[in-house]
Amino acid sequence: MGRGQPGPTGDKRDRTGLGTTGTDRAGDNQDRVGDNWDRAGAVGKENRSGEPGRGVAAAVPDCRFPRQRHRDRVPVPVPVLSRPAAMLLLRAVAGRRLPPLMQLPRRYSRLAAGSAAPGGHRGAAPVLAALLGLGAVLAYGERRRRTAQAAQATPAPQYPRYTRAEVAQHRTPNDRVWVTYGTEVFDVTDFVELHPGGPDKILLAAGGALEPFWALYAVHSQPHVLELLRDYKVGELSPEDAAKPTGDTEDPFAGDPPRHPALRVNSLKPFNAEPPPELLTQSFLTPNELFFTRNHLPVPSVEPGSYRLRVEGPGGRGLSLSLAELRQRFPKHEVTATLQCAGNRRSEMSRVRPVKGLAWDIGAISTARWGGARLRDVLLAAGLGDKTGEDGEWHVCFEGLDVDASGTPYGASIPLKRALSADAEVLLAYEMNGQELPRDHGFPVRVLVPGVVGARSVKWLRSVVVSPSESPSHWQQNDYKGFCPSVDWDSVDFSSAPAIQELPVQSAITEPRPGAAVPAGEITVKGYAWSGGGREVVRVDVSLDGGRSWRVAELGPRPARGRGWAWALWELRAPVAAGTRLDIVCKAVDSSYNVQPDSVAPIWNLRGVLSNAWHRVPVTVTR
Amino acid sequence: MGRGQPGPTGDKRDRTGLGTTGTDRAGDNQDRVGDNWDRAGAVGKENRSGEPGRGVAAAVPDCRFPRQRHRDRVPVPVPVLSRPAAMLLLRAVAGRRLPPLMQLPRRYSRLAAGSAAPGGHRGAAPVLAALLGLGAVLAYGERRRRTAQAAQATPAPQYPRYTRAEVAQHRTPNDRVWVTYGTEVFDVTDFVELHPGGPDKILLAAGGALEPFWALYAVHSQPHVLELLRDYKVGELSPEDAAKPTGDTEDPFAGDPPRHPALRVNSLKPFNAEPPPELLTQSFLTPNELFFTRNHLPVPSVEPGSYRLRVEGPGGRGLSLSLAELRQRFPKHEVTATLQCAGNRRSEMSRVRPVKGLAWDIGAISTARWGGARLRDVLLAAGLGDKTGEDGEWHVCFEGLDVDASGTPYGASIPLKRALSADAEVLLAYEMNGQELPRDHGFPVRVLVPGVVGARSVKWLRSVVVSPSESPSHWQQNDYKGFCPSVDWDSVDFSSAPAIQELPVQSAITEPRPGAAVPAGEITVKGYAWSGGGREVVRVDVSLDGGRSWRVAELGPRPARGRGWAWALWELRAPVAAGTRLDIVCKAVDSSYNVQPDSVAPIWNLRGVLSNAWHRVPVTVTR
Repeated sequence: MGRGQPGPTGDKRDRTGLGTTGTDRAGDNQDRVGDNWDRAGAVGKENRSGEPGRGVAAAVPDCRFPRQRHRDRVPVPVPVLSRPAAMLLLRAVAGRRLPPLMQLPRRYSRLAAGSAAPGGHRGAAPVLAALLGLGAVLAYGERRRRTAQAAQATPAPQYPRYTRAEVAQHRTPNDRVWVTYGTEVFDVTDFVELHPGGPDKILLAAGGALEPFWALYAVHSQPHVLELLRDYKVGELSPEDAAKPTGDTEDPFAGDPPRHPALRVNSLKPFNAEPPPELLTQSFLTPNELFFTRNHLPVPSVEPGSYRLRVEGPGGRGLSLSLAELRQRFPKHEVTATLQCAGNRRSEMSRVRPVKGLAWDIGAISTARWGGARLRDVLLAAGLGDKTGEDGEWHVCFEGLDVDASGTPYGASIPLKRALSADAEVLLAYEMNGQELPRDHGFPVRVLVPGVVGARSVKWLRSVVVSPSESPSHWQQNDYKGFCPSVDWDSVDFSSAPAIQELPVQSAITEPRPGAAVPAGEITVKGYAWSGGGREVVRVDVSLDGGRSWRVAELGPRPARGRGWAWALWELRAPVAAGTRLDIVCKAVDSSYNVQPDSVAPIWNLRGVLSNAWHRVPVTVTR
Repeated sequence: MGRGQPGPTGDKRDRTGLGTTGTDRAGDNQDRVGDNWDRAGAVGKENRSGEPGRGVAAAVPDCRFPRQRHRDRVPVPVPVLSRPAAMLLLRAVAGRRLPPLMQLPRRYSRLAAGSAAPGGHRGAAPVLAALLGLGAVLAYGERRRRTAQAAQATPAPQYPRYTRAEVAQHRTPNDRVWVTYGTEVFDVTDFVELHPGGPDKILLAAGGALEPFWALYAVHSQPHVLELLRDYKVGELSPEDAAKPTGDTEDPFAGDPPRHPALRVNSLKPFNAEPPPELLTQSFLTPNELFFTRNHLPVPSVEPGSYRLRVEGPGGRGLSLSLAELRQRFPKHEVTATLQCAGNRRSEMSRVRPVKGLAWDIGAISTARWGGARLRDVLLAAGLGDKTGEDGEWHVCFEGLDVDASGTPYGASIPLKRALSADAEVLLAYEMNGQELPRDHGFPVRVLVPGVVGARSVKWLRSVVVSPSESPSHWQQNDYKGFCPSVDWDSVDFSSAPAIQELPVQSAITEPRPGAAVPAGEITVKGYAWSGGGREVVRVDVSLDGGRSWRVAELGPRPARGRGWAWALWELRAPVAAGTRLDIVCKAVDSSYNVQPDSVAPIWNLRGVLSNAWHRVPVTVTR
């Protein structure tokens, strides 16, 4: 199973202790080099310590495409389960109406809207924060607090005490599946196969806390769910595991925020993590806590009251804006857009030949509803709207507040033409899915460039400079570019290739997972598809026989006024016969009728970017 | 060799008598169904009569990449050649400096600029035409007239007389290679291997007239070239072959214009033809006579003095413009843009499984410098600039003056957003490479939509209508759309797919040709690459081993202020060993890093459109 050592205990686990060694990722980790691999003075070379193995347990229903029908037709061996528990389970399931795809984010937002306590960043001035509507917290943080209070009110325990490290050893039905909720410990092994969302979802939380998962899926916030859970109680957490760890002030990453335990970590310092495939396409909008995180440097701590954004251009023109001014002087514009890392699916490229870079699986892509000022409006207000490219192409260079050990900030640029285009909808975003930006995603302000590689959507934005040249930063000049497969580290000339801006058409299968055994009858294949430049996905073809024959997948709904910035979720149902081996393949077509290449090797490149060949998932059909 | 019957004689040949049965196209013709195959009342089902086989002889130098070096190193068997002729040849070759790629079109334009006689359309009012600068003719027509005059001045013949049909029987070195110039007949067999442009180029003219080819390549317009040719004179044309044929008034296609004999005809009625691959990438701008022609219906005869363009929109707003008003009221805007038919490279798709459509080889793509009024300016002048798509997507519908037997015109539409975008540079074009539009390309006015499938660039434009709906025409609704390979004529639902607008990234190899035998030493591979939507080509990879290893091709120059509308020509030189078999492959990358798919079958579709898989050319290396 490739499991690492047990993780650290207590809350510290949320911050730094999560690994990525699930079975289907075992092959991806051999080449885990941070993307800042060749920068002089770069901090945060990858730290592989504290890798505890796959996350924790979850009770996440599959909201769009309930598997109940399957289960009715194809009986599974039901483990021993008390009759009252089974009744409770059935009541819990019967009581909810399975929501359609598009409702999940709204329910999720409703959940989060109830919490207005300050948090998520340090040193906020409460009065100003209240005035500005700041202070939303991670929803699961709020729930965790409430639950802890509730747990403290329960009668004194007759249960044994366990440390979190002990709980973490119970991750499989063979070892028994344990989870925690508040300070209580539960053995839910007998419930795994009964979980309405499917056994794979609840197993995501095995060995850890339920709260982060329940917070994402509101179906759990009903009293009878908790009642059901109590039937499985086997113990209490040891008191010391409630204590918060003290910060490590010598570690430049010690100030990084807590993260959701479901994230699969590719690099701890800097923090780079992706949601597990099964959760990625659970909802059209990715919950903020699950949104893939791609940090190049430590997360800066920003005091929103003193934050200033510098906007400059030729001739000394410019602006300096406080956060309040950015919010008040410019109309708020909202865009639903998918961000994708250039290295998404790099691990498939590594299997052809080693590449340098983080071993992303298929999850370095996520979708949110972003709110902020249009960059166009800010540039026009700064008097910088007249460089329309008639005298050559101009650029807008961004710098972040995240800096390396030498004080050099992260930086990137986009063409000025895109920045000034009303159609391109480039934002200086301060909201993400209706909440203020989380610290990992650029609090208080980030750039959001729809349709363009994530690397240009600079987080923790400190400056916007209109310039006749592209950003001089390492990440614009000597990274995030594509090359011919024959180019190696001896022959590469980074100046010969353009910086990646718009990304090519992409798709991947999120369910089933590679190597899975699926029951005979009807298979459901799910995934995402997206293309850069606002070119919306018009079709996804799926093959079950490695590409010899194809079927058209059903595309999920997208926002009505879609501008093609967001992905399409898709699914295909098809009959499958027992005992067969399937080679499931998907490929998408965008509105320019661009398609994905058949195979990885011909697009291989030394940095492992732009990995958009057909996605292949081999599975076997049982019984 | 798959040759058809000998062609008709005299000038009629230029109009209707040309076939497409060169060796390398023999496999492509099995499915030659006109693109108007299923329209009720459509005229012009394909007429396969009068197909004489491959064109006529040419003396076309390879201007960019002279093969002289090869010839020096790799001696070829020199046929019997008189010493004076050889000396003349060497003088002719030494006297010219091989021009760079970009100069060819200019030389070509300079040639054409000398002729101001009216022609190319019927019934032009000479005074108005002179005022408007109309009346440019096909350059080779002018040259032909001058040459004929010169020929009449030569002394009385002691030569035998031959008909054009007799000349047409001499197309190969075995049959002797004959060509005509004026009324003279020449046997140039012994010159074929000495031709500075290569034997393959001169053989394009074998059996026919030299003038159309010499007109394209100004290097021939020097006195010593004609002097050299005279050494090979073997006869005179019979007098009756100078007579013009009378028009066939019952044939709706009888009014179609004369065409260049080098074009490879895929359908005579309607006329659809492409330049031979060897000529396609001879110059960055495709000479008008060689520009691929895709007609859906007979070519209308337009009297420019009475031409009116109707521009309409909601609320009764609109304009009616004469040709003079279109030219005078709106600034002339020029764009260098490539047009490609959706069916380019369809013949490769047919080899996977039959499709319906013209069997285009790789030549349904060409590039020109277009001049005309911006559609945006005309729409704004008509008061139609306010439908910016806020109330859903609006469209601009075009209709041509070309109609079928029922009176239904050709029609298509583009999104209004593109039409109104200054960046998109959509033109109502009246000039092509510095000349008025040729009749086959839309005289007097056509739409030119850069970056978009050729089908939307409606020719012989009669109306422009701003509408909340796409064009209702057959070609917008039930054609020019892409589908999954599993969709057949029983299951196809045309409403389920979007009309093709922007095209995906494309490339093809023009030299060498499939099945060629190339000499050992160094191979030169040439081709074109292009992508839709203004996404310029950033790289072309070439493989000699079927895709296992790749090299980066050298991209030719493009206009400095390129907006990505035009193709890139490219070449690769690589050493090759005697006796090997090469599987040459090319694939292009555009500025969004989209790539071409590896293989044809997974993108196969019932209409054979969007055929952009890797292009493969097998060759053998001799000696």
